[in-house]
Amino acid sequence: MKERYTLPKIFSLDFWKIIFRGASQVMFQENWCGGVLIIAGIFWGSYYSGFPSVAWGAIVGVIVSTLTGYILKLSPEDGDMGLWGYNGILVGCAMPTFLGETLLMWLTLILFAAASTWILVGMNRVFKKFKVTAYTFPFVLLTIFILLATRVMHGLPAPYLSVPELPGPFSSELDTTFKSLATYWLKGISQVFLINSAITGIIFIFALWICNRWAAFWACLSSAIALGVAILLECDSHYIANGLFGFSPVLTGIAVGCTFYNVNWRTTIYAVLAVVTTVYIQAAMDTIAVPWGLPTLTTPFCITTWLFMLPQLKLNSCTKI
Amino acid sequence: MKERYTLPKIFSLDFWKIIFRGASQVMFQENWCGGVLIIAGIFWGSYYSGFPSVAWGAIVGVIVSTLTGYILKLSPEDGDMGLWGYNGILVGCAMPTFLGETLLMWLTLILFAAASTWILVGMNRVFKKFKVTAYTFPFVLLTIFILLATRVMHGLPAPYLSVPELPGPFSSELDTTFKSLATYWLKGISQVFLINSAITGIIFIFALWICNRWAAFWACLSSAIALGVAILLECDSHYIANGLFGFSPVLTGIAVGCTFYNVNWRTTIYAVLAVVTTVYIQAAMDTIAVPWGLPTLTTPFCITTWLFMLPQLKLNSCTKI
Amino acid sequence: MKERYTLPKIFSLDFWKIIFRGASQVMFQENWCGGVLIIAGIFWGSYYSGFPSVAWGAIVGVIVSTLTGYILKLSPEDGDMGLWGYNGILVGCAMPTFLGETLLMWLTLILFAAASTWILVGMNRVFKKFKVTAYTFPFVLLTIFILLATRVMHGLPAPYLSVPELPGPFSSELDTTFKSLATYWLKGISQVFLINSAITGIIFIFALWICNRWAAFWACLSSAIALGVAILLECDSHYIANGLFGFSPVLTGIAVGCTFYNVNWRTTIYAVLAVVTTVYIQAAMDTIAVPWGLPTLTTPFCITTWLFMLPQLKLNSCTKI
Repeated sequence: MKERYTLPKIFSLDFWKIIFRGASQVMFQENWCGGVLIIAGIFWGSYYSGFPSVAWGAIVGVIVSTLTGYILKLSPEDGDMGLWGYNGILVGCAMPTFLGETLLMWLTLILFAAASTWILVGMNRVFKKFKVTAYTFPFVLLTIFILLATRVMHGLPAPYLSVPELPGPFSSELDTTFKSLATYWLKGISQVFLINSAITGIIFIFALWICNRWAAFWACLSSAIALGVAILLECDSHYIANGLFGFSPVLTGIAVGCTFYNVNWRTTIYAVLAVVTTVYIQAAMDTIAVPWGLPTLTTPFCITTWLFMLPQLKLNSCTKI
Repeated sequence: MKERYTLPKIFSLDFWKIIFRGASQVMFQENWCGGVLIIAGIFWGSYYSGFPSVAWGAIVGVIVSTLTGYILKLSPEDGDMGLWGYNGILVGCAMPTFLGETLLMWLTLILFAAASTWILVGMNRVFKKFKVTAYTFPFVLLTIFILLATRVMHGLPAPYLSVPELPGPFSSELDTTFKSLATYWLKGISQVFLINSAITGIIFIFALWICNRWAAFWACLSSAIALGVAILLECDSHYIANGLFGFSPVLTGIAVGCTFYNVNWRTTIYAVLAVVTTVYIQAAMDTIAVPWGLPTLTTPFCITTWLFMLPQLKLNSCTKI
Repeated sequence: MKERYTLPKIFSLDFWKIIFRGASQVMFQENWCGGVLIIAGIFWGSYYSGFPSVAWGAIVGVIVSTLTGYILKLSPEDGDMGLWGYNGILVGCAMPTFLGETLLMWLTLILFAAASTWILVGMNRVFKKFKVTAYTFPFVLLTIFILLATRVMHGLPAPYLSVPELPGPFSSELDTTFKSLATYWLKGISQVFLINSAITGIIFIFALWICNRWAAFWACLSSAIALGVAILLECDSHYIANGLFGFSPVLTGIAVGCTFYNVNWRTTIYAVLAVVTTVYIQAAMDTIAVPWGLPTLTTPFCITTWLFMLPQLKLNSCTKI
């Protein structure tokens, strides 16, 4: 048992399964086949849009953060489940998405992917006291720090960040043909890994289908609900069209709808309310981020899921009103 | 006992007592008569100033959030004390105060008033570990989220929010005739429910007087101290004249001065220091909120009361220096 | 034992030792001789730069906050270690650094230095559940509140704060002669107490040397690493030249490198990573603060040290990879 976690053997098949499980854990799955598909989806989306470094960042991020778990000899149970890697892979996707591809970017990516592993341990020591976990918050916090830092670092240029400004006017005129709506809906799923591609969205749905059919169902349903609510509330059309109102609700839906609760009609209502709430909190976070030109990453998902899971409501038991 | 909380009977007299206790719990009271007066004060202020929807929002908010407690079968003890309703009534006051009166506003109000009930349960699971509670923080957090969200939602216009800008110059010239000062002082009390009316302030003092004379005393004293400190520090006169430096100190004063501590000379000094500190934190929050044109709501009260109650100082026992 | 903490005797030699230990606790030391030297360094730096009120603010802050501990009859063990004074002395340094010297400034300083003592007690009740402490966060939080508040208070002018603006262009051209670099490096250490003076930096190193040679080593090493990383990442040269990338890493280095962990090669690597991370978080906080024209104070140190200490990694035991 102990030997299994020593360095000589880690580049074995078991190691790679753990790596791929890390990719699947972003969507609360523990299935290396699903992880392979997810990484395939990331490669497709990033190469197709001309940003191959996003895919390679994902690979570096998940390997570095998983290796860090081995080196620090953290709980092997967590490692086996892929919990060392899911923040690292997101750090690895985010950095080349917003930052210019320089040596310093890669070094920063490695440092923060590694840090995401022990910071998750620390945060979970806090959150587990309240029977929730940190979700993707280590990724969110570290990436926001790096993106903010680039504003005063010429050595770490961030050409793909927005310009800092005050909240102002925006357009909510949207192309609502069926084909466009389907694209927005699929991009809402692909944006979980910061990928802006309908094809990748389809691959991700398929990946979830392999892992857990309810998870695939909730991803589809949540992205659709979020799209509908965002259109109803006439949100910024640029955000809607790129799936940026979808990815946090997708994660909230999978988390509340079929991961932390069993599926029944009560938990379904509760999860739908959580998904709708995530759209509002997404809009709120978009507004907060404007003066620094930042993305929200998965903050809306983290906040909403904490707000809905902290009460520890007993919704699984059969009760009559 | 159990039947009491089933839907058929909830629109009984008991139900309405619980609703009104919810109104009184905003000021830490558990007295349905006081709640009736408070709601009367809200109606007076909102009709008089031409915003009747604020009063109806309050009614909808307190009913929805209390019903949510029944539906989720939360602890009946909390329900009886009115703890399901006090965040909902504030959400209900705040939404029509800042947002345009549309169907989507009312639907949003209902969703977030309901959510305030389980979010309070979740937050208290955290705060009670440290022997404090969440106070009005569920209301503050949810309302701030909605107000931020409106900045990127044309479907939820917020015509009564300020324009986003950077902190800049302001006027501290104030009409300090006795009559004006008395008006500011009373508005400091009425603004606890986002009402800008001296008459409502008088009704609220009377409501507190019925519930607990010390609470009425501390509301009056705290608003007066806050007014004095704000004038001494030459704060923004527009804020002072509308009672916006008063409402958080009023809540801090009632909380620290006569709710969580018994009244004695030591706790009185401590509560006065808390009230003065709240004025500074009010000014700080006003400044933080400027780039998004947001109100502070009762954030300054929550922060100050946490800072003063977390140490759990033993001020009630008689000690000699 | 009990009498020792009654007011008549507190202006004894023991009292002054506690005061000076408070000064040394800012750098995690418990040594009144070191504290005397630190205060000497503060006096040198503040008089030399023409801001003598900073030194007198430090004296008032540390005395007021320590007296508050006596008056509230807090744990004498904490008092003996100087833990009542280390936030107060920083509040006392910060207020005259940024605010105009008025009577209201001094009254505010006294109120908030006193409050820092009980707020530390409250925060530690929270943080100790997770086996970390509040570090200098009471100082940070209270000072940020005051600085924000000055933006809407004419009675509390803050002429030495920056102008609020959005993040924008900056210069990273730096004079990198050896003499200049040495100055930046020493100022990185003196800025722990908001002093911008290389001589004070030398005095602080000497003060640490008396207390604990590893602490002196880590202060020197951390300021050097931070300087190197900030130059490598081409950070804002104005900040680098005034030591503003150094003071938080210095505290992180002493904390992680030789206070909360024993010195060995594993903890050394971990502490170096923490120091490097602090530079990024310093840059991130600098950016966050821009729209209000605020300084970051020691926020980056607090955040990084929490992130690195919360996991409670077992790095002291000898383990083989």
